[in-house]
Amino acid sequence: MCAESLRSCRVALLGCGTVGSAVARRLPAAAWPHIRLTHVLDRRHAAKRRAIAGADVVWTDSIDAVLSSDADIVVELLGGLQPAAAWIRAALAAGKSVVTANKQVIARDGPSLLRLAECQGRQLRFEAAVGGAMPIVRALGEGLSAAEVTRITGILNGTCNAVLSRMEAAGCTLGEALADARAAGFAEADPSADLDGIDARAKLAILCALAFGVRVDPDRIDARSIGAIRPSDLDRARRRGAALRPIAHASYDVDRSTLIAWVAPAFVPGGSLFARAIGPANAALVGTRHAGEIGLFGPGAGGEATASAVIADLLAIARDPAAVVPAPSLHAPAVVTGLHPDTTIVEAL
Amino acid sequence: MCAESLRSCRVALLGCGTVGSAVARRLPAAAWPHIRLTHVLDRRHAAKRRAIAGADVVWTDSIDAVLSSDADIVVELLGGLQPAAAWIRAALAAGKSVVTANKQVIARDGPSLLRLAECQGRQLRFEAAVGGAMPIVRALGEGLSAAEVTRITGILNGTCNAVLSRMEAAGCTLGEALADARAAGFAEADPSADLDGIDARAKLAILCALAFGVRVDPDRIDARSIGAIRPSDLDRARRRGAALRPIAHASYDVDRSTLIAWVAPAFVPGGSLFARAIGPANAALVGTRHAGEIGLFGPGAGGEATASAVIADLLAIARDPAAVVPAPSLHAPAVVTGLHPDTTIVEAL
Repeated sequence: MCAESLRSCRVALLGCGTVGSAVARRLPAAAWPHIRLTHVLDRRHAAKRRAIAGADVVWTDSIDAVLSSDADIVVELLGGLQPAAAWIRAALAAGKSVVTANKQVIARDGPSLLRLAECQGRQLRFEAAVGGAMPIVRALGEGLSAAEVTRITGILNGTCNAVLSRMEAAGCTLGEALADARAAGFAEADPSADLDGIDARAKLAILCALAFGVRVDPDRIDARSIGAIRPSDLDRARRRGAALRPIAHASYDVDRSTLIAWVAPAFVPGGSLFARAIGPANAALVGTRHAGEIGLFGPGAGGEATASAVIADLLAIARDPAAVVPAPSLHAPAVVTGLHPDTTIVEAL
Repeated sequence: MCAESLRSCRVALLGCGTVGSAVARRLPAAAWPHIRLTHVLDRRHAAKRRAIAGADVVWTDSIDAVLSSDADIVVELLGGLQPAAAWIRAALAAGKSVVTANKQVIARDGPSLLRLAECQGRQLRFEAAVGGAMPIVRALGEGLSAAEVTRITGILNGTCNAVLSRMEAAGCTLGEALADARAAGFAEADPSADLDGIDARAKLAILCALAFGVRVDPDRIDARSIGAIRPSDLDRARRRGAALRPIAHASYDVDRSTLIAWVAPAFVPGGSLFARAIGPANAALVGTRHAGEIGLFGPGAGGEATASAVIADLLAIARDPAAVVPAPSLHAPAVVTGLHPDTTIVEAL
């Protein structure tokens, strides 16, 4: 018997919003006595510190205080490109491992940040950046690493799915469905990054890297907004026995180095995995050369669900702080195409 | 830039049947130049070596030749408890990492073998032991490690699912459906371990350890055979708008230390994830306290699909041969119950 006890890990949290506060609430858990929240950085820390218990936690609005602290792992939940990307880089440079849910940063700077992490002998994990609680990052990066993934089709934006499935169920307008989603905590004050597919294409770019070893700038992914969807579009889907869902799709032809990738509202067959995804659900169908078709689904939004994915990454780092996570060597596809310009948005599939 | 090249890994394969030969065929791949198949142990090696190329491979029927070789990783695909368990133990003791698809060995000896692996500074991985290509071992052990899983319901035996879904589609007898499954390569000459739930309860025991941290002897899991299912049972399901599937179920009440676990043919709602699983598919619904309900599905049987899961484990070990994989500390539940004795087998759900 070799009694190696788990080394204690000190955690600093950047951003104490919906997901961050869920992480902060769950961390002082009996199940993980070796994980200790030591710092929380938040612009509004004076207001928030009252809402979250934890006698030993240092609240701050200074990134330097975090970087110079004895925290082993920095959890970045600020969202947005900057200052998140710069702070993740600084944390890795300071010898800390990083867990993030930031799809924009990983989609754009993931390769260079992963290389920095590898050189530093530290880890950068991002399960929560795609799919919320649906563990698709590990599935593609590890479980299916030998299956030769050829295509991914999925619902990757919980807000859009909540809006479209609400329009379908209630026969209401997009504006009304959006108000409902906002009331339920599934939509932000400015929902344009969700509705216009900016969020989904960052996630799709991450999945392309994991599944195909391909580097694609999210801006190059054809994205069509769900913002113009009207109740009559839902009716048209229903008359055809279909449903309307916010779909992200990518397929890669390795021999021709050609990536097809797009994000758009699309008809899906009634009763299918995607039609059955209601509310803020995410779902993905992964086509492979050697292992048939693999499916995953689960809650794609919500503080608790996303916090679970963040903490799972924390536990993985704590289990093996010296783990070697080689940065992927990605290549740029020769051709990147999207939907044919003539394709009606709601008839993509 | 830190240019750490992947260390070359030498792999010895124990057992060259359906899965083993699929692994042997795929390993000399351009994608993984660092993985080299060096030894194959098979009782009928004289006959099989002709079928599989590979100039540098040593074919043998001697485990000692493998143990004393320079192989870094032993892939155990013999099936059955012995000699597989003894040889896995010997391989770990000889300083090798092990990948196995052996549900019986992992269900019974997993905890002690994982402890041995940890003490040796080696790894024991077993993604292929449950779910074929459906990556549920990583999902439960890693991705959902912070979600607090409360229940698992799944189709874990591809053979039984192929048989029941065939009876449903063709209106044939179990014997006829079994003959079809055998012809398609999804059933063994002696299918009793599949039909009687012996296979599924070993898999369920493994999932209970991963999801609940609970140790349960597979023999203590209530298992009801599908062997007595008649076409009239399928008709009865259809009349109720249901389907009949081979279901494995476990739920754990941590406060009462009570595990409910059973394997039985059961009615499932028409159109549900399980009713839609046709042929040798596997599927699982995972209920959690913090991340809602997560679903997975994929091919649960077949040499190619299972080989993909085996090679994924090989790649994970090759990526980080010194990874620390702490053995789980499992506890025995105070109470283990199954289906109520009065429950009609086909009405369990």
